Amino acid sequence: MKTITDIEGVFADGCHCGIKAEEKLDLAYISVPNAVAVAGVFTQNQFVAPSVVFTRQRVQNDTLRHILVNSGNANVGNGEVGDLANLDIAREGANLFACSIDDVGVASTGKIAKKIDLDPFKKGVSVFESRGFQRNGSAAAQAILTTDLVSKEVFVSREIGGQVISVAGIGKGSGMIKPDMATTLSYFATDIDITHLPLQTIFRRASDRSLNMVSVDNDTSTSDMSILFATGAKKIWLTPKNLAEFEALVTEAMQEMAKMIARDGEGARCLVEVAVSGAASEMDARTVALNVVNSPLVKTAIHGADPNWGRILAAACKNPRVRLNPDTIELKLNGILLFANGEQVGANHTQLVAELKKDTIVLALELNSGAASASAWGCDLGYGYIDINVTYT
Amino acid sequence: MKTITDIEGVFADGCHCGIKAEEKLDLAYISVPNAVAVAGVFTQNQFVAPSVVFTRQRVQNDTLRHILVNSGNANVGNGEVGDLANLDIAREGANLFACSIDDVGVASTGKIAKKIDLDPFKKGVSVFESRGFQRNGSAAAQAILTTDLVSKEVFVSREIGGQVISVAGIGKGSGMIKPDMATTLSYFATDIDITHLPLQTIFRRASDRSLNMVSVDNDTSTSDMSILFATGAKKIWLTPKNLAEFEALVTEAMQEMAKMIARDGEGARCLVEVAVSGAASEMDARTVALNVVNSPLVKTAIHGADPNWGRILAAACKNPRVRLNPDTIELKLNGILLFANGEQVGANHTQLVAELKKDTIVLALELNSGAASASAWGCDLGYGYIDINVTYT
Repeated sequence: MKTITDIEGVFADGCHCGIKAEEKLDLAYISVPNAVAVAGVFTQNQFVAPSVVFTRQRVQNDTLRHILVNSGNANVGNGEVGDLANLDIAREGANLFACSIDDVGVASTGKIAKKIDLDPFKKGVSVFESRGFQRNGSAAAQAILTTDLVSKEVFVSREIGGQVISVAGIGKGSGMIKPDMATTLSYFATDIDITHLPLQTIFRRASDRSLNMVSVDNDTSTSDMSILFATGAKKIWLTPKNLAEFEALVTEAMQEMAKMIARDGEGARCLVEVAVSGAASEMDARTVALNVVNSPLVKTAIHGADPNWGRILAAACKNPRVRLNPDTIELKLNGILLFANGEQVGANHTQLVAELKKDTIVLALELNSGAASASAWGCDLGYGYIDINVTYT
Repeated sequence: MKTITDIEGVFADGCHCGIKAEEKLDLAYISVPNAVAVAGVFTQNQFVAPSVVFTRQRVQNDTLRHILVNSGNANVGNGEVGDLANLDIAREGANLFACSIDDVGVASTGKIAKKIDLDPFKKGVSVFESRGFQRNGSAAAQAILTTDLVSKEVFVSREIGGQVISVAGIGKGSGMIKPDMATTLSYFATDIDITHLPLQTIFRRASDRSLNMVSVDNDTSTSDMSILFATGAKKIWLTPKNLAEFEALVTEAMQEMAKMIARDGEGARCLVEVAVSGAASEMDARTVALNVVNSPLVKTAIHGADPNWGRILAAACKNPRVRLNPDTIELKLNGILLFANGEQVGANHTQLVAELKKDTIVLALELNSGAASASAWGCDLGYGYIDINVTYT
């Protein structure tokens, strides 16, 4: 499978240096020394890691070219000590990449308000130094995981303007997943030649249709960030048509990542996709899709393979600021019509139970109120989520 | 313990008539034939029971004096058949109470989109007829419960304007509890002499500070309603001071009900109260309190007696539309200071674990951004919630 370092000019690696107690990879870097532009979206949570503030500034200035990511310590709520630790980690990075401190970013995820020890970081950086620059995207993908069970890598390509353009990424997810105009931790690269502003606009819009539509538990992380580096290797005319095709490609890569994150939600058995169509506006469609994907009652019913679809409609219609007429709504579960014209359609119970035991559940809601649509991705809710979250170290 | 029928002029009773399969009380009435005014708040969910539409109209017209409540069938999503069934139930009620159909309301809770059979209702009404009007508030309180484990009754009194004024109520809660400018099913009575408009204003404001601040699972019911009847027996001068005291009394009764509902949330081990102070506005305080009380990560940590307070701050700060500075926030757990000046305060871990095992957990957040405050009530999240909701019949 291809990964982020299959894009020419992108380096990445991962190692275990002791930030996590267990023998798991816990430090990664992604480095694109000759990137021509960078884009990023960041958590809107105000209880925020110093790494987010630090790295956001370097994206805004379009100077970010390298990032050190740890998955053992979120370094949030550690006061001034945490701010200074973040700066020390960045300095380690600047040495490793032989660059200005303005070019290096830091990302941190893991437990909030855990005291930070810099020794493992120093050890990890010296491991990376001894190895030299690697193109080991899969190790980096492993090293950024927290409670994830599965490593998450995407790679998509399409011919645009006479060149094959690629977008690739690595990401993590699992819990505290409800991005708010931002994302969980993920890093993408593309080989298109582009400048910061159009790249940022495209990346922001693609985030809104992908990672921002994922919810595992409606909790928003303190450490979320998603970054897209452009290497500039593939030069094409940036016509509106070509830019639109590039945006579609970025969206495709990010939606693939979104689905992987949702499917691997903490304790999840299946991916739940809520596809809303016929809405008066895209904002309405997004609200309805997120309300359904976030409903604990919908999620527990799916976990129990219980076709209690009344809960789906109750969740879809709960926000009085999105005007809906339940009598015009059509609801389908994996293509089977359940509700239309204000009442139940006689679907076969046994068949519905069988569908609910599959590993992908698609709930399609046609609102018949307009032409806008949106999809959201989440997962079922069962005992596994409780297991993981009653204690978390 | 005193209940709603200890208010002179209030009649209520409950019976089992077969709407529920189990041998549980499933039909109730509350009747205040000589009420001088009525107030009510209703679910804002647009996937709504015909009973809500029907009863809301009678509250707006101030004609509602009697209500039939069933706890076995929500009668939502049943199309025109459901609308007609609701009308038939109301007709049964009008016969029972020997009143115009304009004076009788219907409430329904239980499974959504379950076909409705009128025979049990007829049977139940004839049981009530044979018994004559009863003052059996506790039986009514039992008969409106669904997955609740505990019956919920409140009674409070205070001398206002030279008379002892009382407010009493019965209610149900348990799951699909996130009222939105409305409440779960609950019925209150007071003996004050008052007209519809001031009663409605006071009831709405008291709801906003009580039942509207309860969240078990952030799902909003299709059948929520809360009603307050005034018997008019106690005549006092309705001065601003007396009205304010009456509003405080109504709020007290409703907050007591709110706490009972939260404590008996599906699968709950404890009551969680989130008390936010020092907010720039009451709306900000409410948003922060609800974000914390709704956080699955906060709720699971409390269930596991894990003092992972970083999750509390992350939930409190997650909405970028409420401007907060985490460095000025103070967080206390059952009175123990955990976080101040942007960092952890060295609280004793063993003591925190012991506090988290108690049956009431108070999380106090002082935002130091203003003078407004609000409280929200919820519960922990553990295996019990999953047990109840993976299948629900």
